[in-house]
Amino acid sequence: MLRSIARYLDPPSKDLLVAAPKDDAAVWRGDPLVVATTDTMVEEIDFRLSWPDFDFRSLGRRLISINLSDLAAMGAEARHALVSLSLRGTLDIASVRRFYQGIAEQAHRFHCTVAGGDLSATPGLLTLTATLVGRIGAARAMLRRTGAQPGWQIAVTGSLGAAAAGLRLLESGRRPANEIERRWVSAQVDPTPRIGAGRALVESGVRVGGDISDGLYREVERLVDEAGLGATIDVQRLPLAKGLNREQWSLAVKDSEDFELVCAGSAPRLLLAQRALARLNLPLTVVGAIERRPGIRLRTRTGIERLEGAGYEHFR
Amino acid sequence: MLRSIARYLDPPSKDLLVAAPKDDAAVWRGDPLVVATTDTMVEEIDFRLSWPDFDFRSLGRRLISINLSDLAAMGAEARHALVSLSLRGTLDIASVRRFYQGIAEQAHRFHCTVAGGDLSATPGLLTLTATLVGRIGAARAMLRRTGAQPGWQIAVTGSLGAAAAGLRLLESGRRPANEIERRWVSAQVDPTPRIGAGRALVESGVRVGGDISDGLYREVERLVDEAGLGATIDVQRLPLAKGLNREQWSLAVKDSEDFELVCAGSAPRLLLAQRALARLNLPLTVVGAIERRPGIRLRTRTGIERLEGAGYEHFR
Repeated sequence: MLRSIARYLDPPSKDLLVAAPKDDAAVWRGDPLVVATTDTMVEEIDFRLSWPDFDFRSLGRRLISINLSDLAAMGAEARHALVSLSLRGTLDIASVRRFYQGIAEQAHRFHCTVAGGDLSATPGLLTLTATLVGRIGAARAMLRRTGAQPGWQIAVTGSLGAAAAGLRLLESGRRPANEIERRWVSAQVDPTPRIGAGRALVESGVRVGGDISDGLYREVERLVDEAGLGATIDVQRLPLAKGLNREQWSLAVKDSEDFELVCAGSAPRLLLAQRALARLNLPLTVVGAIERRPGIRLRTRTGIERLEGAGYEHFR
Repeated sequence: MLRSIARYLDPPSKDLLVAAPKDDAAVWRGDPLVVATTDTMVEEIDFRLSWPDFDFRSLGRRLISINLSDLAAMGAEARHALVSLSLRGTLDIASVRRFYQGIAEQAHRFHCTVAGGDLSATPGLLTLTATLVGRIGAARAMLRRTGAQPGWQIAVTGSLGAAAAGLRLLESGRRPANEIERRWVSAQVDPTPRIGAGRALVESGVRVGGDISDGLYREVERLVDEAGLGATIDVQRLPLAKGLNREQWSLAVKDSEDFELVCAGSAPRLLLAQRALARLNLPLTVVGAIERRPGIRLRTRTGIERLEGAGYEHFR
């Protein structure tokens, strides 16, 4: 196996004064307001080498994407990535190279250097961590989970449910049979972080939002819970991914791992945001509203449901 | 097991505008020159729960310390830590709490916030990553691995060999029998990063150095190799840890995991640095010299040896 990751890290540049691992740490010129996040993927939990057509290159891209999504959720831009990888010594070098290739291509695509890294041998499961350091322009110019107001609308970027449908397909061991199924799988293994959309939301004056990588339901809960507010999500309005029918809406709501953004704002504010996202060819769809009454409600064709823990609780 | 690490992360403060995981990422006011590093510990490779008197609290401190040591090696100060942990669901909550307690106490001891974190479940080995973001005052005010000059002296902070002696004791399964052995074990499981010493070296005008967590031999090699220079290390002058005898010098040279610093500079420069470190009650011991002739040589009682790969090669 690879003993050093030196060749896969970026060399010094105008953005990166000193590059690890040639030195003990990376050095760069800082930004006034720094946004930072870290996220890990564990083999057998977040991915399986046994999935059909498993590709280390898209795994590398995904490691950067899941962290970029956290920056997007703040309305931030990415600047520098550090990766810390625990790999088995039995892993073939071509796979390791493809993995780093994926890391570098996704980082560079989002104007981010691969500034540092650490490589550990493990006799166990592949465990892959990235830390992303980014920036925002002003302390007011970010998306937060606090500040939602009753009467505001809730909107989501892009389409929902494809990642969950892709995961089901991968776990069944069946190869995608058509273009639609290929898109589902791609939404799971190689999601697109919404960095541009996060910036556009902030520039439109939206200040409340997050990413829905833990599921739409969970994220909406986070936006209202602390303020003692509630929300209703209108299941009929969810922008389901192509190929999903309306009966499969639950794929879009819970544990869905779609790396889309959800935001909340007044109706006129979200109309501005919709126009800004249209310029990025990305829909922003109103799917519900913030309400005074605590709890998250789902409006389905047959009535109002309430999702709790692992299942659904009908309360009306 | 713990589902959230929220309670173990620092709340917002003057240093930390937005704290994860309440939001998707941490936000802080940046510094003009940022230094960043990441490092991972893997169970069964870097530590074993079966070691005598294994303590999760010192494991937490060590996770921060090994990263602090990389900042110390640049002459940097720490500002913010992000931790990403893959833990087994079977781990008892008291152990997890002690682990976080150790992380927080070591971070705070070195004026560093615990700004963000991620918790993954793993069915495999504990895999523990921290990323540390710090600062230096000026682009010239740091330690680099480049710039060593022939004729310069090589010096190390503190004492050497204790961590390797401690590891042998831990792996033998025997409990330390006296205060000296307890110090060896402590050097392995709970090292002290040399943040203050790194700053003092830089303030004394020293510009070439690194940490010797990969062994003194390996680090001296890094300081001279790229410039096509060499070095001789005088084994008789190594500041061996208390309780080690001169015949055990190899514990101080290779794979030693002492988290001390090595530096290189002119004799008058290192004299200044010695005085500065004396004010921190830390010895700085000259142990060798940079030379024009490539290769690393060890001067022992019986002659000159050359260390290569896994063993020693006598070449004179």
